[in-house]
Amino acid sequence: MQVSEAEWTDTEKNIARAAFDQAYKREVEALLKQVREQASTLVELSDLWRLHDFLSARRHEVEGKYDYQYPVLLFVFAGLVKEGWLHLNELEGLDKEKLSKIAALARI
Amino acid sequence: MQVSEAEWTDTEKNIARAAFDQAYKREVEALLKQVREQASTLVELSDLWRLHDFLSARRHEVEGKYDYQYPVLLFVFAGLVKEGWLHLNELEGLDKEKLSKIAALARI
Repeated sequence: MQVSEAEWTDTEKNIARAAFDQAYKREVEALLKQVREQASTLVELSDLWRLHDFLSARRHEVEGKYDYQYPVLLFVFAGLVKEGWLHLNELEGLDKEKLSKIAALARI
Repeated sequence: MQVSEAEWTDTEKNIARAAFDQAYKREVEALLKQVREQASTLVELSDLWRLHDFLSARRHEVEGKYDYQYPVLLFVFAGLVKEGWLHLNELEGLDKEKLSKIAALARI
């Protein structure tokens, strides 16, 4: 289900980039908010190491997830839709086949 | 300069334990305060990963430092005095030789 760069029109690329950036912005803002809240309740050292473990996991996850490479972009979008960082309608303008693939993958 | 457990009197052990716990408490409280402050100013993802790097380093350092083993305790105390987490006068009641070793090591 890989789609090479040549199969994306310029319009689709613009839509994809904007959607990708929007999802990234949402997830980063939510993460920052969560950490600010978690940090404000720190009482003991074990809380701090729990925050550290949390950041280790999220860093690994976030850095791996936002991979803007056309061949894997349908999978990336499907994951973002599934997790709620992106709405399918923000991808409108992509061709029907790409959209239905993303929707199907997001349901898995 | 190692000092075996047999060379610590019960009184000295009590003084040492209280001083050790006090230094630990101070350092942990300062660390928690610092992280709460740092977290309240988080604006972007790079700030978050900087916090993560900071926590990784401090966790490694703190977990290594607070090692309550009699043979290495003079070194531990010297380090805590040097870093400001403990005052030499909080160790009063240890025998003169131990105190002067700690003071000397803390100046290195």
